Amino acid sequence: MSSAEGFDARTVAVLGLGLIGGSLARDLAVRGIRVIARDQDQQALRNACEAGVVGAGVDEDLRQLAEADVVVLATPVDEAHGLLRRLAAMELGARLVMDVGSTKSDALATAIAYGLGARFVGSHPLAGDHQSGWGASREGLFVGARVFLCPAPQAMDDPLTIATALWQSLGAIPECIDAREHDERLAWSSHMPHVVSSTVAIALRRAGIRRSDLGPGGRDVTRLAGSSPDVWIPIVRENASAIAAALALVEADLCAVRQMLIASDSADLSAQFSEARAWFRESGENAIGASVPTDDSPGRAGHL
Amino acid sequence: MSSAEGFDARTVAVLGLGLIGGSLARDLAVRGIRVIARDQDQQALRNACEAGVVGAGVDEDLRQLAEADVVVLATPVDEAHGLLRRLAAMELGARLVMDVGSTKSDALATAIAYGLGARFVGSHPLAGDHQSGWGASREGLFVGARVFLCPAPQAMDDPLTIATALWQSLGAIPECIDAREHDERLAWSSHMPHVVSSTVAIALRRAGIRRSDLGPGGRDVTRLAGSSPDVWIPIVRENASAIAAALALVEADLCAVRQMLIASDSADLSAQFSEARAWFRESGENAIGASVPTDDSPGRAGHL
Repeated sequence: MSSAEGFDARTVAVLGLGLIGGSLARDLAVRGIRVIARDQDQQALRNACEAGVVGAGVDEDLRQLAEADVVVLATPVDEAHGLLRRLAAMELGARLVMDVGSTKSDALATAIAYGLGARFVGSHPLAGDHQSGWGASREGLFVGARVFLCPAPQAMDDPLTIATALWQSLGAIPECIDAREHDERLAWSSHMPHVVSSTVAIALRRAGIRRSDLGPGGRDVTRLAGSSPDVWIPIVRENASAIAAALALVEADLCAVRQMLIASDSADLSAQFSEARAWFRESGENAIGASVPTDDSPGRAGHL
Repeated sequence: MSSAEGFDARTVAVLGLGLIGGSLARDLAVRGIRVIARDQDQQALRNACEAGVVGAGVDEDLRQLAEADVVVLATPVDEAHGLLRRLAAMELGARLVMDVGSTKSDALATAIAYGLGARFVGSHPLAGDHQSGWGASREGLFVGARVFLCPAPQAMDDPLTIATALWQSLGAIPECIDAREHDERLAWSSHMPHVVSSTVAIALRRAGIRRSDLGPGGRDVTRLAGSSPDVWIPIVRENASAIAAALALVEADLCAVRQMLIASDSADLSAQFSEARAWFRESGENAIGASVPTDDSPGRAGHL
């Protein structure tokens, strides 16, 4: 069904046709793989069928999953648990069951608890957007994107090989990571920035500043505020303690900068902004998925 | 020299060839206007001359400013004060003296204090970037950008007419605003987000997260961390109290979200993220300079 050279499943079931699930379905369909799917938004499912992406719907009783070589859970992360329970009670032929959520520990624990560990691989493509739903999905979303893979300890080589081949066939760059380490790192790299962006948005709303009042910088800082609460609330709840720790540090640092401003302390402000720029410059503007050009300007031009 | 129909100065002096001054010089030069300029980075000045953008340098004693119809101060905001003092002591023929900084009250007060109020118009194009210096400057930077104009109360109509025509001729959209109101609003819409972006960057550095570890969202939130400290420290110092007030609100809100996470309070988290998205959606994704597509997806697709 699959090999190191490529991903060659016949039928993939995609449960949830949002940004990630929908984009995955599109990419698989154009590669000739039959996609069967389910979404609570019946219009999204109809659109996906009419677009020729989805070959058949999956009914409420999930019976069509018996046909699938691979089952992908692409719902908000909290809904994955109930689905895994239902999958465990079915006669599944699938050699890979995979989720695509932004938290990995809880889904993995659930899969193991329900006896699905041997064929479960958690995955998380770094391809999120503030837009969500089938309408936001697109072909090629995963090209160049890093994808974290978290196999269960009891997983055979086979499901990990299939998951790796699947993502590689879509142009993504899979990378194995421990699920706990994943969640700890993502609390910092994704979840905390998301909370900060939304919080800045709310502060601006209270100050009577509209998004249209912002320049390019303010718009970037607040872009994630446009994300779907339905997608994000389950994520931040599953990873709450790690996110809370990250937020506590940001709060303390903001308070420190505020004190510097009140004291008009140039030396401390300079150290602060210089450290931020050092991080920006040292850390991989030439990395995978980088979309912002390297700042190689001298930095002093503009002065007299 | 100028009219409502267009900007037709013969010679414009640009003091500071950074992102804003350099881009302004490029735009004026391609419109056949002679640009004379000065920058403490001699290589930037040479590059601007070799590129055919700058016709002649302005010496340390600034004597060539006598030839200019318009003088533009495009240095970091703290350097504008000393320049205004020097301009006040010269025999200037210029009918417009204009700065381009991100704070407006202090420069305006200085211009008035030195007797330059009648020909001074503060301006602030919303066209910043994390990149700085001549190397980051480019033609067309101001197309579609809002430009705030803050004339002195004693300014004649003439300098405001000239400033308006100048920015309109570059494709920008000028808009008059009281200088104090400008600084209060920009503390929220630009300066606070800048401080937050830098602070998130520093938190990530401490957590051992590199910029290359981030997905598209985290990268956007931290982009402003790459900005020049030389440009930004003077801005945040001039507008310190308004920025401190904005930061205090963000800190309090982050603390509140952190408590919601610790309490796993879904209803409060939902209200928080929903308010952020409401702000994102209600406020002008179709506005001038908008670069992010409207999120018109149903937002529930992706669920089962």
